[in-house]
Amino acid sequence: MAGSGKEIEFYFDFSSPYGYMTATRISALADEFGRTVSWKPFMIGAVLKVTGGTPLPMVPLKGDYHTRDMARVARLWGITYKQPEKFPISSQAPCRLIYWLQKNAPEHQEAAILKLYEAYFVEGLDISSPEVAAKIVATLAGDEAELVAATQDPEMKEKLKAECELAIEKGVFGSPFMIVDGEPFWGSDRFDHVREWLKTGGF
Amino acid sequence: MAGSGKEIEFYFDFSSPYGYMTATRISALADEFGRTVSWKPFMIGAVLKVTGGTPLPMVPLKGDYHTRDMARVARLWGITYKQPEKFPISSQAPCRLIYWLQKNAPEHQEAAILKLYEAYFVEGLDISSPEVAAKIVATLAGDEAELVAATQDPEMKEKLKAECELAIEKGVFGSPFMIVDGEPFWGSDRFDHVREWLKTGGF
Repeated sequence: MAGSGKEIEFYFDFSSPYGYMTATRISALADEFGRTVSWKPFMIGAVLKVTGGTPLPMVPLKGDYHTRDMARVARLWGITYKQPEKFPISSQAPCRLIYWLQKNAPEHQEAAILKLYEAYFVEGLDISSPEVAAKIVATLAGDEAELVAATQDPEMKEKLKAECELAIEKGVFGSPFMIVDGEPFWGSDRFDHVREWLKTGGF
Repeated sequence: MAGSGKEIEFYFDFSSPYGYMTATRISALADEFGRTVSWKPFMIGAVLKVTGGTPLPMVPLKGDYHTRDMARVARLWGITYKQPEKFPISSQAPCRLIYWLQKNAPEHQEAAILKLYEAYFVEGLDISSPEVAAKIVATLAGDEAELVAATQDPEMKEKLKAECELAIEKGVFGSPFMIVDGEPFWGSDRFDHVREWLKTGGF
């Protein structure tokens, strides 16, 4: 984490396979260019209300294609991935837990994000459940009861709401979404463009 | 064009910037692996009726992002690109001309596709006009009056309609869309995945 300390803002929804895959790589990319990652879990559903979009799995033709593409990108990237039976899910509880960690134990947030993602996309656990999500996070920080309570904490509710509103203000409409020095990049398929941007200082 | 002669089916809409950019590269990729390109101009509008989608430029947040991303991908790929003032356009006339060429002078279709794309995305000409599109194609094959007539030829109308229906049957929902040995790939950002697929025989 040496270097300028300038951030890569990394927006992601816990129900997003492309968000999961990119989350496994974003930290190494940041390190490579002396950046830090600003982890921004958000709710894609809040954005779809603005864009008038439909959750990807529900779109005719496109939904089926992406089911195939998600597994294919995972194989290409060498990432273990299993399409969960319950998909998509609401990511309120895990999002609020990450904002709780940012306040109380920020050093554990990356590990918690990856554990939550793996629980959902590898083990098929329903991390939309406050109890399930709290149990996973408790292996890193906090205790289960405290963490379950955090998912209903008015401060964390407000924080998540504010972050979703800020995301929309910044033009974030999908997951993953990366912002580098004001430049927006959407999708795991723009990961290499982010690298090129960091390498060249923009193109 | 040596090799197995097996095809890469290349679906594209003449109003699609990512279709344009990918069209400039697809032939070289096919050559690299001893394939041929099966050029499939289609109307994205016909597909959006099935998927319930909105034309990209009209989607809040996403539309603005893509205006930026299209120009950025063009710079990254080293392609001359200028966002046309009239965008998107209906691509009926240029599509029908390409199907006319496939019947009457197939050796000119790739050059015609690239010329039409450049006329629209570099020079800003409105290629939705039968006269404008015919004039461009006439530099390669046919004469202008014959080509203008071809855009209203019932056979070409029927051919384009049939190709759009076939595209939907095959699950094509965006532009560009590439199919390799039955495997579907959507987007200029899957171009490298197609290469990897051809190289490895699938992953």
